[in-house]
Amino acid sequence: MKRVCIIGCGAIGSLYAAHLARVAEVWVLTRRKEHAEALNREGLRVSGTHNFTVRLRATDQAVELPDFDLGIVATKAAQVKPSIADAGSRFDQGALISAQNGLGSEEILAEHTRAQIIRGTTFMSGTRHSDTHVQYELDTSTWLGPFEPRGTPFAIVQEAADMLVQGGLKAEALPDARPAQWSKLIFNASVNGVSALTGLPHSPHFAAEAKSSDLGHLLHALIDEGKEVATAVGVELREDPWEMNKIGAMTNHPPSMLSDVRKQSPTEVDFLSGAIAREAARAQVPAPLHTAIYQLIRGKEAGWGFQHENQPVPAHETADRH
Amino acid sequence: MKRVCIIGCGAIGSLYAAHLARVAEVWVLTRRKEHAEALNREGLRVSGTHNFTVRLRATDQAVELPDFDLGIVATKAAQVKPSIADAGSRFDQGALISAQNGLGSEEILAEHTRAQIIRGTTFMSGTRHSDTHVQYELDTSTWLGPFEPRGTPFAIVQEAADMLVQGGLKAEALPDARPAQWSKLIFNASVNGVSALTGLPHSPHFAAEAKSSDLGHLLHALIDEGKEVATAVGVELREDPWEMNKIGAMTNHPPSMLSDVRKQSPTEVDFLSGAIAREAARAQVPAPLHTAIYQLIRGKEAGWGFQHENQPVPAHETADRH
Repeated sequence: MKRVCIIGCGAIGSLYAAHLARVAEVWVLTRRKEHAEALNREGLRVSGTHNFTVRLRATDQAVELPDFDLGIVATKAAQVKPSIADAGSRFDQGALISAQNGLGSEEILAEHTRAQIIRGTTFMSGTRHSDTHVQYELDTSTWLGPFEPRGTPFAIVQEAADMLVQGGLKAEALPDARPAQWSKLIFNASVNGVSALTGLPHSPHFAAEAKSSDLGHLLHALIDEGKEVATAVGVELREDPWEMNKIGAMTNHPPSMLSDVRKQSPTEVDFLSGAIAREAARAQVPAPLHTAIYQLIRGKEAGWGFQHENQPVPAHETADRH
Repeated sequence: MKRVCIIGCGAIGSLYAAHLARVAEVWVLTRRKEHAEALNREGLRVSGTHNFTVRLRATDQAVELPDFDLGIVATKAAQVKPSIADAGSRFDQGALISAQNGLGSEEILAEHTRAQIIRGTTFMSGTRHSDTHVQYELDTSTWLGPFEPRGTPFAIVQEAADMLVQGGLKAEALPDARPAQWSKLIFNASVNGVSALTGLPHSPHFAAEAKSSDLGHLLHALIDEGKEVATAVGVELREDPWEMNKIGAMTNHPPSMLSDVRKQSPTEVDFLSGAIAREAARAQVPAPLHTAIYQLIRGKEAGWGFQHENQPVPAHETADRH
């Protein structure tokens, strides 16, 4: 039996952990001690699309981990670095899947492990009801492909996809994961940035293009700019992010970056619009809109700290013309 | 003695009304009845840079107004239309100054009065302490110039500037007000938009350009884009908006659009980035960044109503990868 470790046990990490625990020896590395204790005590329950409960092993201490055949890093993008720093060597003989939004997590993993690294892109969704209970919602595929700079063999990618499928999830091994990853990158960067700045969930506004002030024009422009960067770096998209946006705009779903700014937590913008801006600079093509979104979100993050230090004059007391 | 009417009596309107009441018969048109009653009862007090109290006449009913030699519309840009609709004919034999932020107020006035219309741009600032007490802060000039489509004679502009100076304010009559108006437009559109989207007051972030994520790059790009639109429509700027931004960035002052979004009040974006986007379209030059700011602020305004209608899933309960 293979030994697998899930790093980060939010909704997505919980879904991977529970399903894989049906076909492998699963460990979970959590951030909080109480979370690990609850999982060891109660196991992990899945409801919704699938219904079952599994036993698994959990810890918040990387030093307690054994060596693994496979790992899935399911933290938020900003947590990848601290999560893998201590645990990286436990995967040196195996493979490690990144399951973050956006671009740039694989490079961070590569600095901390000798594992074969696999690019992962997932559209699964779930709601975390407690430390030991996750509801499985969108039963959609995880796309896996080699991380080219490390030359990950396709057979290893295929093996990882097979294990996910055996556990009851949808997964597909692709010779090149970038067309899927970039499709989702462009979609996510555009939708998350606009949502976080406007406060709107992914709603019909995002596809409206009737009036010149309508947000759909901006989404279209952001997506077109992202496509041009993809072309410049030699990636042909798997899906059209504008079509993905039109479908998503019917859901009124709050994207993760909107949830982040509501909680004043650091966002993943470095891995989304920030990544598109960096790739554009590398390829020497312009990306003014994603660059603007990147800088605005960074400014918003700076504002959280700034407002605590400085008490601005209450809004109703100022009324100058500036 | 000339008869003057100030329409809108916030901080700026109060400063005009009080100073002019020292050299003219001044009426004030307010939105709220209690505001007019308080002014009639107590007069209007100025503190700060200047210190005095004046008597004047106030009403919230346009039908009670007599005919005027001069008017100053000092409402917020979004209030110009409802304010002037009933009062416009009272200025048919006189002159009317617009003192709004941005571009587009003069055109609205022109639809509702036969007055000689004067473009006004002011950098005065004040804090409104109550309905009858305003603190005068920045003792800076009001620039006045003809509204070209109406062919306002320069002598009338000069006469209005003289009256403001006699009242104790700084004012300058310019043969062409657009270089000053556009300098402030570009400055205000860029600073207000970024402030409202990030939540940051006009702080050192706005001039920082060390890191690629720094907001100063975005301000610079917005200002450069505004300058290109000004050139395309044939306006040579009076001041460099980037220099204005560098100075303002040391103040930590909350721009009016930040105050608006904190209160969830409609913003003046139509007259700021929206106006730059419209002028760019008219001149057939691109303005992608001001267009994006315009659409984002409009989206933010849409979000206020939207979130009341829909209860999104609480942020801490969702953790999917979208």
